[in-house]
Amino acid sequence: MSITLAIDCMGGDHGPSVTIPAAFEFLREDKDVRVVLVGRPEVFDPAFKARAAQFGERLRVKHASEVVGMDDAPAIAMRSKKDSSMRVAIDLVKAGEANAAVSAGNTGALMAISRFVLKTLPGIDRPAIATIIPSMRGQTYMLDLGANVDCTAEHLLQFAIMGSKLLEAVEHSDAPSVGLLNIGEEDIKGNEVVKQAAELLRNSGLNFYGNVEGNDIFKGTTDVVVCDGFVGNVALKSAEGVAHMVTTYLREEFRRGLLSKLIALLAMPVLRRFKKRFDPRRYNGASLLGLRGVVVKSHGSADVFGYVWAMRRAAEAARNNLIERISASVGGFTNAAAGAERLGAE
Amino acid sequence: MSITLAIDCMGGDHGPSVTIPAAFEFLREDKDVRVVLVGRPEVFDPAFKARAAQFGERLRVKHASEVVGMDDAPAIAMRSKKDSSMRVAIDLVKAGEANAAVSAGNTGALMAISRFVLKTLPGIDRPAIATIIPSMRGQTYMLDLGANVDCTAEHLLQFAIMGSKLLEAVEHSDAPSVGLLNIGEEDIKGNEVVKQAAELLRNSGLNFYGNVEGNDIFKGTTDVVVCDGFVGNVALKSAEGVAHMVTTYLREEFRRGLLSKLIALLAMPVLRRFKKRFDPRRYNGASLLGLRGVVVKSHGSADVFGYVWAMRRAAEAARNNLIERISASVGGFTNAAAGAERLGAE
Repeated sequence: MSITLAIDCMGGDHGPSVTIPAAFEFLREDKDVRVVLVGRPEVFDPAFKARAAQFGERLRVKHASEVVGMDDAPAIAMRSKKDSSMRVAIDLVKAGEANAAVSAGNTGALMAISRFVLKTLPGIDRPAIATIIPSMRGQTYMLDLGANVDCTAEHLLQFAIMGSKLLEAVEHSDAPSVGLLNIGEEDIKGNEVVKQAAELLRNSGLNFYGNVEGNDIFKGTTDVVVCDGFVGNVALKSAEGVAHMVTTYLREEFRRGLLSKLIALLAMPVLRRFKKRFDPRRYNGASLLGLRGVVVKSHGSADVFGYVWAMRRAAEAARNNLIERISASVGGFTNAAAGAERLGAE
Repeated sequence: MSITLAIDCMGGDHGPSVTIPAAFEFLREDKDVRVVLVGRPEVFDPAFKARAAQFGERLRVKHASEVVGMDDAPAIAMRSKKDSSMRVAIDLVKAGEANAAVSAGNTGALMAISRFVLKTLPGIDRPAIATIIPSMRGQTYMLDLGANVDCTAEHLLQFAIMGSKLLEAVEHSDAPSVGLLNIGEEDIKGNEVVKQAAELLRNSGLNFYGNVEGNDIFKGTTDVVVCDGFVGNVALKSAEGVAHMVTTYLREEFRRGLLSKLIALLAMPVLRRFKKRFDPRRYNGASLLGLRGVVVKSHGSADVFGYVWAMRRAAEAARNNLIERISASVGGFTNAAAGAERLGAE
């Protein structure tokens, strides 16, 4: 099935200098993909047109007069920039002219616009953001990282459903395992919301592993880790902080004195292999879940290699009916819950 | 001023084989310290007595017939092992025969017994555990790591006060800076409890820096980072998880093939310096705060070098009147709050 991606050309730290070459590369890689590049008219200059011609009808261009800034407040970006490249890309998904949108722009604005234009799926209270984290067993999908604070147990259940369906669609996993982020493995651990969520998850029909702890994210104990947006943000930023400290110290020690520098030269191939194992570019492409359309957020600083990864994930989610999968599952749960309620009332 | 430490000889993975040599070393290092070793009678054999003699009256022994196991439920350890080495050490603090207790035993049991025997300070709702985390600017004290979940804003304020006073006593910091762990620096970010806590902290008279994020723990943005026990546990375990992954990968790459192994040999001095910068032993000694007595928890796996660090911190806290400092500050806040309430009522 041919998939059309709408690309917000202007988003991210590097804008068209990354998004356009990435689109070219992905068009070459995946012959079943079409791309609509959305950006300011001057981006699509004769040099662009000369290079774009090879893709014929598979590559289209859509003009947008405005750009959402990295510091724009989400509400402002949504209300006063109705012709932004981000908004027009999402509008294309809404209109059915694209199957998914990809943007490296302002996350808050992307969520606000996506939510406003596409709306949430029935049975989903709050959209969430699922990000991919390198783990010792490959990768872990974690959600929410979309600033959903003060979550209820039902919200966590919805996140778990959405995360499972995302893995089914994008990673072709069968019954991905779901862990609930907690402060101990035992059922009695944790705050009230998490205890209630565990109960819901045990009866959900999902492949619920049970409670997991912070280190399990990186061990790769489960395919999906579910938590509220506050805890998810703190976990991820703490991990980034310690990774930064460790790599900084390693670099410093290899630069301390002439001998260390010589050894560093010798060790360069080893250190390069080491670095490659964490290459964040391979994990690029966070999914905005719970919406009536596929929206993928690339990291703002992504290069071409990283941006292509985000496009791959968007195409895969659309191709494998992510929205329909989530919708059917949440619907199923909603009916079951309603059924249980009716039984309780009788 | 001479300080007496009560040492739970039996606690930890290594028990007396670590705690006794550590006590000897600390007695040699700090001439103003006395130690009471609490343990099963057979530990204090003739070989021990021969070595202990050099310290004269500065080293005493107290027999305890039981040992709290690492897997004992806290309530069981508290109720049914009244003659455990842990319990007897805490009893010595209660009786005024020791100024502080140190244990490498079961954390839950240590907290339960300490709370039961020593009681909490007036104005403190829940004791907390403050741990020390290596940062790029030295170290960060973080609390709570004692499983206080579902905290209120007032609890977070109390943690901030206790953490500040701990730094004053143990690190001789003047007005240590306090950060509130959140998901963004802006005041509008975060969940309801954190927003309310920020308001309380701004009016607390503490050196409140404002919101900090997960990576700030390792950057060393503030001296103290305050959060509830759920978030604290997840942040710390996530950081441990990523640190483990990074160091495992580094080791694996340096062992991949003969050439890498040769380079590893050459790079050994550099890698050793690198490793030393994170040496967790130097950060050993978590403080149980909010009790009417100084209790320090050593990591269960600590060796002699690490255990001495925990003893140093216990002695320093007792010597610099940690309990009185906390008590005076919380009292001050309680009075101010009561005053504000009266004003509000008028």
